[in-house]
Amino acid sequence: MQDFSFYNPTRIEFGAGKIAQLSELVPAAARVLVLLGGDSARRSGTLDEVLAALGEREVQLFNGIEPNPSFETLMQAVAQVREQQLDYLLAVGGGSVIDGTKFVAAAALYEGDAWDILLKSGQNVTAALPFGCVLTLPATGSEMNKGSVITRKSLAAKLPFMSEHLYPVFSILDPVKTYTLPPRQIANGVVDAFMHVMEQYLTYPANAPVQDRFAEGLLQTLIEIGPKALAEPEDYQTRASLMWTATLALNGLIGAGVPQDWATHMLGHELTALHGLDHAQTLAIILPEMLRQRKATKLGKLVQYAERVWGITTGSEDEKAEAAIERTRDFFESVGVKTRLGDYGLGAEHIDAIIDSLQSHGMTQLGEHGDVTPELCRNILLASL
Amino acid sequence: MQDFSFYNPTRIEFGAGKIAQLSELVPAAARVLVLLGGDSARRSGTLDEVLAALGEREVQLFNGIEPNPSFETLMQAVAQVREQQLDYLLAVGGGSVIDGTKFVAAAALYEGDAWDILLKSGQNVTAALPFGCVLTLPATGSEMNKGSVITRKSLAAKLPFMSEHLYPVFSILDPVKTYTLPPRQIANGVVDAFMHVMEQYLTYPANAPVQDRFAEGLLQTLIEIGPKALAEPEDYQTRASLMWTATLALNGLIGAGVPQDWATHMLGHELTALHGLDHAQTLAIILPEMLRQRKATKLGKLVQYAERVWGITTGSEDEKAEAAIERTRDFFESVGVKTRLGDYGLGAEHIDAIIDSLQSHGMTQLGEHGDVTPELCRNILLASL
Repeated sequence: MQDFSFYNPTRIEFGAGKIAQLSELVPAAARVLVLLGGDSARRSGTLDEVLAALGEREVQLFNGIEPNPSFETLMQAVAQVREQQLDYLLAVGGGSVIDGTKFVAAAALYEGDAWDILLKSGQNVTAALPFGCVLTLPATGSEMNKGSVITRKSLAAKLPFMSEHLYPVFSILDPVKTYTLPPRQIANGVVDAFMHVMEQYLTYPANAPVQDRFAEGLLQTLIEIGPKALAEPEDYQTRASLMWTATLALNGLIGAGVPQDWATHMLGHELTALHGLDHAQTLAIILPEMLRQRKATKLGKLVQYAERVWGITTGSEDEKAEAAIERTRDFFESVGVKTRLGDYGLGAEHIDAIIDSLQSHGMTQLGEHGDVTPELCRNILLASL
Repeated sequence: MQDFSFYNPTRIEFGAGKIAQLSELVPAAARVLVLLGGDSARRSGTLDEVLAALGEREVQLFNGIEPNPSFETLMQAVAQVREQQLDYLLAVGGGSVIDGTKFVAAAALYEGDAWDILLKSGQNVTAALPFGCVLTLPATGSEMNKGSVITRKSLAAKLPFMSEHLYPVFSILDPVKTYTLPPRQIANGVVDAFMHVMEQYLTYPANAPVQDRFAEGLLQTLIEIGPKALAEPEDYQTRASLMWTATLALNGLIGAGVPQDWATHMLGHELTALHGLDHAQTLAIILPEMLRQRKATKLGKLVQYAERVWGITTGSEDEKAEAAIERTRDFFESVGVKTRLGDYGLGAEHIDAIIDSLQSHGMTQLGEHGDVTPELCRNILLASL
């Protein structure tokens, strides 16, 4: 096990009807900005529930945080916070709304050009407005971590940042709120959570048996419940497990004390920024070849993954690794997320621009060994056509 | 999954040499009381490391918190805190020192008879002094939870209490500090952590696949590393895994959203209070028969435990359950913790007093179904002779 620091003060309120607890979770004197994505929270009645629970508090709304939340949009919310002297944020939505809210929380108190927060990966964040979350879409884990990813359309850039000031004060997880989500968003959520675990698990053996067992438990659970979460949208227990699994997949716990990869995510961000693919789609495309082309350095963990997660007990180490990679691809496909660039209309002619963009963002030494070069990424994309 | 609230703001600093970080973790102006158990922290040099890291801060010592920390001893520390106007506590030791420090933190700010804190199980705690921990003994999980158990010798009572005000601000976990522990304390720690998981896991199926997988992962890890932790005291990685496993066994995570038992603990407390057995010894004695005599209501989970944790895949459900119970007893014995009352010189003639004490503490409806009566506890003890 490597040395680590672990700290996660976010309070989780989990269960049906928990939105009513906003009346106690948000300070009585708070001047609240409720941040929303599209109009699903309004249509589903969730917004009404939220407003009822907030009662007599001063509440304003900010609508229209898009998937892959943009700097341009979020700066409008920052202006609203400053002009209206609001002092508490409440994200109502999925990972994009929560990521966006984290940026607003930091940028509202940041002096200078707020884009610098992205350029410094959040190391220059010294304070943030307090904020809570009402999660409606299980996927990103943003509801219980300190990270966020923001896109600047004008620069075609999608960049992460993090800060200890950006843990939600609380997050309300009500599985019922996921019943009305489109299947595509549930499928993306399953893949997203799966990939968050893989980035922290599938590196090299590091004498961390508990972290390995926890990661494997999350993966096994996603494999068990993923298809059922799609087939039976109103099965409370399945949606509850999906929601909690997605949160635990990226709350810092399974990554404490172990090496981490994240090359698939970084390359995927470029695909989203340039071509607008859903985040989970980019991960499903890239992961299989990312694992295959790095099989030499990942073999120990690939075999463990094959045996423990997929129950593959026969064959050589290489055969086990190959079988596990194919089972992973099949799993993504089984929940309806396609795994080839061609499935999204992208061909070899697009790859140069993706690699150029990766390089321009300084992403030249990715992965747990820093050996994932732009050239390797090019080969991975070529093999993923 | 059941509804739950989860909140755990304790910061963990894990690794060799992390004690030096006390210089930043403790506020510079703090007036610190360092609480200690016996003289092992002094002999091992840990206390010197702690004092060096605390630097110029005002620091006083309180020595002599005993195993099963006593109200009588701790009230002396409370008096010292009040008289010397100390405002920050630092526990240096294992679960007993940390549990004791939690009581001092609460009692120092409590108006009225501090024993009331135990009588009300901590519900009357509205504030506590901030405190940190330097953990030297992996076992109880107290370093990352809000609970504590205190003994009042004059009443032969051992009672738990908990409060959200009693999370440590931070805990430093340095596996090297465990190298010099006596084998008996390591063995107790393995059993203690194992039992903490069992109390939260081995109840009835509750649609909580992630909690189950996490619990099974902790149990599997303890089974793998327990004997090695005893055989190779200076194997850093093994001690590191034991330390982190014991913390995760009782930090609230695996118990969130699932039914819990704790009957073995409550009955065990009476054995310690009356006869001075180590906490882990009482658990090792009671658990096998506790499981056997409640097999009817626990069968589903017993079979799952047999299959997933012990790899028992043949036989009837009853045979699997029986085999798992025996494997559990064998595991405790394999790390040197005896599992019969007779091993500790206790016979049938002691049982009446134990049951009387249990009843006098109101422990008449224990377990996840509230169906563990004093009469059942009597039968369990009789079968554990």
